[in-house]
Amino acid sequence: MRPTHREIALAGLLRCAEPPVAPAVLAFVDALGAEEAWAAIAGGLAPDEVASVVQPRVGGLGRDELEAQAARDVAIAAESRAVLVGPGDPDWPEELFAPLDWVRPYEQCPHAAPPLALYRRGRGWATGDRGGLAVVGSRAATAYGMRVATELGGDAARFGWTVVSGAAYGIDAAAHRGALHAVDGEASHGGRLGDDWGRGESGSAAGCFTTVAVLACGIDRAYPAAHRALIDAIAQGGAVISEYPPGSVPARHRFLVRNRLIAALAEATVVVEAGRRSGSLNTATTAANLGRQVFAVPGLVSSAMSVGCHDLIREGRAGLVTGWPDLVGMLEPLAPAAPTHRPGDRPTDGLDLVTSRVHDALPARGAVSVDTLAGDAALPVPDVIGALAMLRTFGLAQRRDGLWCRT
Amino acid sequence: MRPTHREIALAGLLRCAEPPVAPAVLAFVDALGAEEAWAAIAGGLAPDEVASVVQPRVGGLGRDELEAQAARDVAIAAESRAVLVGPGDPDWPEELFAPLDWVRPYEQCPHAAPPLALYRRGRGWATGDRGGLAVVGSRAATAYGMRVATELGGDAARFGWTVVSGAAYGIDAAAHRGALHAVDGEASHGGRLGDDWGRGESGSAAGCFTTVAVLACGIDRAYPAAHRALIDAIAQGGAVISEYPPGSVPARHRFLVRNRLIAALAEATVVVEAGRRSGSLNTATTAANLGRQVFAVPGLVSSAMSVGCHDLIREGRAGLVTGWPDLVGMLEPLAPAAPTHRPGDRPTDGLDLVTSRVHDALPARGAVSVDTLAGDAALPVPDVIGALAMLRTFGLAQRRDGLWCRT
Repeated sequence: MRPTHREIALAGLLRCAEPPVAPAVLAFVDALGAEEAWAAIAGGLAPDEVASVVQPRVGGLGRDELEAQAARDVAIAAESRAVLVGPGDPDWPEELFAPLDWVRPYEQCPHAAPPLALYRRGRGWATGDRGGLAVVGSRAATAYGMRVATELGGDAARFGWTVVSGAAYGIDAAAHRGALHAVDGEASHGGRLGDDWGRGESGSAAGCFTTVAVLACGIDRAYPAAHRALIDAIAQGGAVISEYPPGSVPARHRFLVRNRLIAALAEATVVVEAGRRSGSLNTATTAANLGRQVFAVPGLVSSAMSVGCHDLIREGRAGLVTGWPDLVGMLEPLAPAAPTHRPGDRPTDGLDLVTSRVHDALPARGAVSVDTLAGDAALPVPDVIGALAMLRTFGLAQRRDGLWCRT
Repeated sequence: MRPTHREIALAGLLRCAEPPVAPAVLAFVDALGAEEAWAAIAGGLAPDEVASVVQPRVGGLGRDELEAQAARDVAIAAESRAVLVGPGDPDWPEELFAPLDWVRPYEQCPHAAPPLALYRRGRGWATGDRGGLAVVGSRAATAYGMRVATELGGDAARFGWTVVSGAAYGIDAAAHRGALHAVDGEASHGGRLGDDWGRGESGSAAGCFTTVAVLACGIDRAYPAAHRALIDAIAQGGAVISEYPPGSVPARHRFLVRNRLIAALAEATVVVEAGRRSGSLNTATTAANLGRQVFAVPGLVSSAMSVGCHDLIREGRAGLVTGWPDLVGMLEPLAPAAPTHRPGDRPTDGLDLVTSRVHDALPARGAVSVDTLAGDAALPVPDVIGALAMLRTFGLAQRRDGLWCRT
């Protein structure tokens, strides 16, 4: 089947710059749309600040070569039953990725740029879908950590939450397996059903959106290789996604960059086991920067695999959770029910204190940056981002050219 | 040896009312001193509000009988090499017990009354002695909890802190053993040396003030009986104390009442393992009410013995500690160094914000209750108590008839 112009454009864009993509490229694609932006880049017509970013990948290649390369990527992805989705598609997790665009890239949170597009096996997000529960932790997990992750993944799935993680050994795999086993044979009870699945894994039409794996390599690859069957099962029961072109190897830095997508796709992140320098601590930090809740599971004080979790809790960077029952009481909905209004109320009545303060700090005319808002409202940036998400949900604020204004 | 009048008085007072002693009796003894108060009570001349409290214990007994009973208590205690100490004695931990007097008895913290006196084996507190580290937890501790308590007790002792606990199986015993073993044979490195030891355990003159056990039974008893040797060792290396007359049985309610003394004698309390309804959670609550720091040790989420610790941490009622190195960074000195003054400074310069606010709330004339101060300064009662302790240390506040005023 011949790829569409849009597929070519998305595949081409994903190959032209290494994530996290520089702000200039993000802004260019955002302004022109994927197809026009790709045509400009492939035709050598992009402005300098974009051309200089994509030069290492597209420099020296003609338009035809670039289009052929993109077509090959689409074809390879299709062999893995993966589709391409991007901003504007109905199954693009627009709301969940939005905060990645709001935090200042390359400053407080250098990995926070949203993806230009995604390769995806399995189901897509539906409009209004809530975020999931990220269950992350060490590859070298202990039997204890594996058990806790399996139970947490299982309980989350049973209660209709989507588990989000990587595909690594240890905690990642345990969380996915817990989720998959929990809903195995009882599809009607577990997982979350959206109303638009996009095109996806052919065998998954009757399944449920149980668990999502975000890869740090091409969608056509299984890393680690021993997890090929697990990754296939995740694609059947949920989704496997990647922002890397087919064939991409899981280079070390890609795990850290990938972690921002795990954090963004989840309402809350739970670190189950983490050594002092575990990459999952980076996921926790990103989640916090995105205004999401962070939790950690305690363990033996003598376990090197619990040191990172204990640090997070002790330093007040994560709440302590011992299992799903704790979480139920502590999870705050990402997009809370709109405040109820009585006649005569102002639209801002019923907002919580922090959200009100951010709304008050929005100027009556003109638009301001998140930074400026944080300064004016005297609130930390993650709180401002959380409040802006809520104001946007309620139609009280909007983003324009990277700045925020009242509607 | 014939007991002194003071010994008779202290022993008599300890027998005449069950701790926690009612405010009327505390105020009466505080006002008259132990000997006069005892004479009035034994002679049937105490005011009604005092007489009604002591009636169940002294009613129907004549002065001679009461004196003989007290003399017997002193003699039995002496057989256990225990002395009697009370307020005003140089080896009475006046500063440490003070907050027990400040919190409202029978309201927020019904067990917070200070003891009228103490039976003590081993060393006494020296003027200016800092509080110790309370290491508390379940009797039915796991091997893990025992190991953590032993290490914590040992490290605390090695770094010159006094361990404070009960004498029960489990965490109590492990903490004491850790402290005793740590300084065994290296007395010059461990423990804290005061400058006034009172009369005490004859064999302990060359030892150090390593660990303190607070009993919920008479000082002549060992409970549990299997801990007789341990209790003797604690008396040799530190101190064993009780506010119960000789022969008193360790009734269940006495453990809860006793816990307030453990909390008071410690600058910080660490709960190592605690089931959901463990008595050590009561010690933690009392410590917090006294304005002291509370910590808890995490463990396996599947361990019933860690549930109480995890609850404390999750609810923000305790900091997470994994061992002594954590504590070193978090322990705040109970009586911090006085602020340094330059010429022209006011005496209140250099106070922290909370302490300043409490000082500001003290009226220029007259005296007010802790309650009133808390209301006026808009601070929680434990914070006010902590601030008053500091102001008293700096000579900026004093207590008069249960109320507080500027000096």
